[in-house]
Amino acid sequence: MAGFWFTEKQTDHFGITMRVNQTLHTEQTDFQKLDMVETEEFGNMLLLDGMVMTTQVDEFVYHEMVAHPILNTHPNPEAVLVVGGGDGGVLREIMKHDKVEKAVLVDIDGKVIEYSKKYLPEIACELDNPRVEVKVDDGFMHIINSKDMYDVIMVDSTEPVGPAAPLFERGFYQGIYEALKEDGMFVAQTDNPWFKADLIQKVSRDVREIFPVTRTYIANIPTYPSGMWTFTLGSKKYDPLAVKVEEIPDLPTKYYSPELHHACFVLPKFVKALVE
Amino acid sequence: MAGFWFTEKQTDHFGITMRVNQTLHTEQTDFQKLDMVETEEFGNMLLLDGMVMTTQVDEFVYHEMVAHPILNTHPNPEAVLVVGGGDGGVLREIMKHDKVEKAVLVDIDGKVIEYSKKYLPEIACELDNPRVEVKVDDGFMHIINSKDMYDVIMVDSTEPVGPAAPLFERGFYQGIYEALKEDGMFVAQTDNPWFKADLIQKVSRDVREIFPVTRTYIANIPTYPSGMWTFTLGSKKYDPLAVKVEEIPDLPTKYYSPELHHACFVLPKFVKALVE
Repeated sequence: MAGFWFTEKQTDHFGITMRVNQTLHTEQTDFQKLDMVETEEFGNMLLLDGMVMTTQVDEFVYHEMVAHPILNTHPNPEAVLVVGGGDGGVLREIMKHDKVEKAVLVDIDGKVIEYSKKYLPEIACELDNPRVEVKVDDGFMHIINSKDMYDVIMVDSTEPVGPAAPLFERGFYQGIYEALKEDGMFVAQTDNPWFKADLIQKVSRDVREIFPVTRTYIANIPTYPSGMWTFTLGSKKYDPLAVKVEEIPDLPTKYYSPELHHACFVLPKFVKALVE
Repeated sequence: MAGFWFTEKQTDHFGITMRVNQTLHTEQTDFQKLDMVETEEFGNMLLLDGMVMTTQVDEFVYHEMVAHPILNTHPNPEAVLVVGGGDGGVLREIMKHDKVEKAVLVDIDGKVIEYSKKYLPEIACELDNPRVEVKVDDGFMHIINSKDMYDVIMVDSTEPVGPAAPLFERGFYQGIYEALKEDGMFVAQTDNPWFKADLIQKVSRDVREIFPVTRTYIANIPTYPSGMWTFTLGSKKYDPLAVKVEEIPDLPTKYYSPELHHACFVLPKFVKALVE
């Protein structure tokens, strides 16, 4: 069989490895190394700085779990901001919610958008939706310059190294608080509890100091380190745990469901201990 | 840094890789290849036929999740059988339940027991408990020769290749039904939904045809394929979903909790579709 084996060292001592049939595109952008490859197990796969960002086979988990818990909690999410997320997967899920009138996506790297449209078309499929505005810009600065503007903000960033490092700082969460309307809420991907327990602990503490409601939830993503991913949600008013299951719409999803809306917040004991 | 990188190909095209500092023991037993190695990330690790069975760092998830959901469902689990499980991890969790008067462990390979005691002492720590009887024997035959004997049976097997293959057949589940008392129940590890969807579907269907109550639940185990593991439970009478959270004891665990007892049965949509 042609191709080669790609390995991502997820820690200094542990990694995943997969067969790559061919490299579709490789480029050092202004911000990061971008590789788009075709894998045998997971379809086309986007790598940034050698880390798996998304694959055609398992992308639905991450994208659904960023978008739906928060959009099914806020009663009227008209104005939504996505920081990062240039592949368009989170936007695709947002567009399933009719209440969203306008979704702004701010990704620092236009090349991610360009090559996602080309090689991940079923992920990037809503980037040209008339309800969507795409800006190639610094998400941190966009947040700092926005006041009282958004109902919901989703932070779909890379790992806390490279261009996304400022997106895990307390100042960023304070900026998000000010960019949100008086009943706004946000969610951010916050890595995994097996290898990044310190990060989760720090982010959860920072968000708790700023937002009256702070919640952590989890999802299984096979191509992400440890397979267990956390999301941290901060809210000025609405609590995802107060939503009634029977009032959650049954959207066309493959992972998220009304029942899972509550179950995903029930954390294994060692994870719960990190965020209390 | 000394050592080498061990890689388990979890499918033909995907695997995990980790740094091994040293090999502690390696042997072709009468049944399988046994390797005990010291890893940098996960501590000591037991491999059978090149597949990760357990590691010191993440073993608690699997062992707790085999033992506690079922033992906190059956009101009087006096007689318990473990098929496989020679490392002793499931037994250690069973011994946390005072209601268990006798736990029989039947593993086909005495070498697994011997080297787990030597290199995984905190996992194997209850193998000599007076409430435990260890038999080096064929678990399939033990089941076939047992009638109306056990309250709870736990199948802690390897993957459905090699010596454990018969443990995934319908005839085995029929044998379990007959080995159980009139209100007995069993649980088996049933691999992952990302790469083994067909197996989960088949096992669930087989168990449903035999047991009036059939349930599937999941847990996150970083060193197992995809990080998401399923367990299939068959019961003649008691339903784990009927257990009241406030009646579940808060045992000394690191993953399982009374709240998780219910949440772990809420399956992602694509997994739920496999078992309905």
